Amino acid sequence: MEYYFSDKMKALKPSAIREIFKSMGDPEMISFAAGNPSPLSFPVDDLARIGADIFKNSSTAALQYSVTEGYPPLRAAVEARMKEKFNIGREGDMTIITSGGQQGMELCCKSLCNEGDVVICEDPSFIGSLNSFRSCGAKPVGIPLGDDGIDPEELDRALSTTENVKLVYLIPTFQNPAGLTTSLEKRKAIYDVCVKHGVIIIEDNPYGELRFAGEDIPTIKSMDTEGIVVYCSSFSKILSAGMRVGFVCGPEAILQKMVVAKQGEDVHTNIFFQMLCHRFMTECDLDGHIAGIRKIYREKCGLMLSTLDRCMPKEIKYTRPEGGLFIWVTLPECINMQAFVKKALENKVAVVPGNAFLCDENGTVNAFRINYSTPSDEDIVRGCEILGRVAREML
Amino acid sequence: MEYYFSDKMKALKPSAIREIFKSMGDPEMISFAAGNPSPLSFPVDDLARIGADIFKNSSTAALQYSVTEGYPPLRAAVEARMKEKFNIGREGDMTIITSGGQQGMELCCKSLCNEGDVVICEDPSFIGSLNSFRSCGAKPVGIPLGDDGIDPEELDRALSTTENVKLVYLIPTFQNPAGLTTSLEKRKAIYDVCVKHGVIIIEDNPYGELRFAGEDIPTIKSMDTEGIVVYCSSFSKILSAGMRVGFVCGPEAILQKMVVAKQGEDVHTNIFFQMLCHRFMTECDLDGHIAGIRKIYREKCGLMLSTLDRCMPKEIKYTRPEGGLFIWVTLPECINMQAFVKKALENKVAVVPGNAFLCDENGTVNAFRINYSTPSDEDIVRGCEILGRVAREML
Repeated sequence: MEYYFSDKMKALKPSAIREIFKSMGDPEMISFAAGNPSPLSFPVDDLARIGADIFKNSSTAALQYSVTEGYPPLRAAVEARMKEKFNIGREGDMTIITSGGQQGMELCCKSLCNEGDVVICEDPSFIGSLNSFRSCGAKPVGIPLGDDGIDPEELDRALSTTENVKLVYLIPTFQNPAGLTTSLEKRKAIYDVCVKHGVIIIEDNPYGELRFAGEDIPTIKSMDTEGIVVYCSSFSKILSAGMRVGFVCGPEAILQKMVVAKQGEDVHTNIFFQMLCHRFMTECDLDGHIAGIRKIYREKCGLMLSTLDRCMPKEIKYTRPEGGLFIWVTLPECINMQAFVKKALENKVAVVPGNAFLCDENGTVNAFRINYSTPSDEDIVRGCEILGRVAREML
Repeated sequence: MEYYFSDKMKALKPSAIREIFKSMGDPEMISFAAGNPSPLSFPVDDLARIGADIFKNSSTAALQYSVTEGYPPLRAAVEARMKEKFNIGREGDMTIITSGGQQGMELCCKSLCNEGDVVICEDPSFIGSLNSFRSCGAKPVGIPLGDDGIDPEELDRALSTTENVKLVYLIPTFQNPAGLTTSLEKRKAIYDVCVKHGVIIIEDNPYGELRFAGEDIPTIKSMDTEGIVVYCSSFSKILSAGMRVGFVCGPEAILQKMVVAKQGEDVHTNIFFQMLCHRFMTECDLDGHIAGIRKIYREKCGLMLSTLDRCMPKEIKYTRPEGGLFIWVTLPECINMQAFVKKALENKVAVVPGNAFLCDENGTVNAFRINYSTPSDEDIVRGCEILGRVAREML
């Protein structure tokens, strides 16, 4: 039997990150390739205690079918927190629960994009979202990401000259993969450009609560007087990634359509863990818990940066994140990135080649992504030393 | 701001069933409209005990990101059980875990169908799947469901004359909404017709383990020597619907594509509950537990049928299921179904109007669906008595 696939899925390959994971069986391998939160960030004791209570006192509700929009008390708690922390949500907005932050992107694209429509993205951008757009038949088109975000004038030009742009996808805070944050000035300008063109922005903010240095910058959604921003985030980096609980806040008309799309995908998100999130938010010290996670990542990021500072030849440049999980390392022209990544792997350090994050799948970039949240402190030091040695050998 | 939606989502409305749920706030309402498993079918004590142990001894794995294909030990356990119970799975097949059975349908359609492609369905069929196909841009086209399944010759004609048919979607066992089961003879003939036309079958079997009368009939997937059947099922009706854990077994090439699509939707299914399912399957008496559920539904279905027999005028016809959750009630021509449903609702009994399950959204059918798994025994009797009274008044 020969199988024929849909145009949108035909060419889509599993993400490069996943493929690297498969070579991770080697126990000697140091992985800087993951994007996993530290297991230390899971509040296991509280989750276990509340979980036991849910089984004991609310088992029917926790195991039965539920509504697609999400567990109402959790929606309310999330709404209140978004408002308080990020000034998000106003008249005409609605909040729903999704199966991880990723589902928010996919549902939004499915609801708004026909096949062949364009999603403007930062270049590089999060491969999971790019593939999600591609799987909906939409085409990611990149605008280069500068140190403080994409250039609003370039966005204006792209929106003026590109046909069928339905979405602008941004990770303005601690971007994945670059670890960079878009400045307030650029956020305002980007928002204005999108209002001018009547284009919807997806603001993806999974790392927003993970700031360990510098000052918070207002979210784009907090400026959204016109109802053009769909804001996606999740509990993956602050409670548990494996439970797959995320949320979206955006204009009700769009969110209602996303609910219909979600109904056709998974009916609703695991309700037991929605109840668990709600109980944790209302009974435990979520802010204190997040402060603890920030401390872990401040130390891990600091350790990785100081080791890179010590071991890396000065020709190798890297971002200095104020939060999030990732550092983006740019090689000088004289070192070929693919050769570097291969040699690093041979020396038992896995990193993600930068081209995996490009909108143009055949594009090239002389950079790679490394992660400090997953590896142990010892592995961070050893891994960076190895990367430094590989760099010196290739210079 | 005016919002423009994708062609595929533009016309799609929330399912009629969901809309009926919204009017269910009334505590006096007797709902025969749901498709919920009985809460008595949830093995709460075992789930609570194993859940506590997972939090205690495997918390990192249970709360961290996991692989898209599903938790390997659960995949293996599901594979073994499908083989044993339904003779499903052979060389070239692969099993993955999905976020409920519904996601299997959606991922398969997304992987195989372009916008405008056709999915042949039983008419009536499960509205959740129909909407799932529609949300992928595919068009459900119905073949009338007879007492023992669709007519293979009619399927042959449809496949010969309809362009761009990519899938045939069937619920051969205890069909939703009709409660009917396709005969072995027709299963074989349908399979042969699909092989002849090289068209993929989705066999949806969420109720297969819920037989409480008669003899098991081999699944279509068990006949699949050619690798044309994608088999979807779930734990929703045997362990918990709210946890959203389903599974798919089918040709590896198709399933690999579905994995890529799943990665773009929710990355993976809630891993804690995947581990819970696996532990329940291997440590508890799943067969014994299912035997208990069958007993509950045998009694509830029997009670509903005997009450209908007692209260319904003989002009009203209804199916007599041997398993599953639903009875399909057909009215005589002299009673208008929509008027009947409205009057039943006024008398505090909710049923689902049959046209909700039609492939042609503007089609009409003089029938409605009722469910016996969700209401209490008392409500089953009272509700059927009310339906009988309404019917007599309208005759």
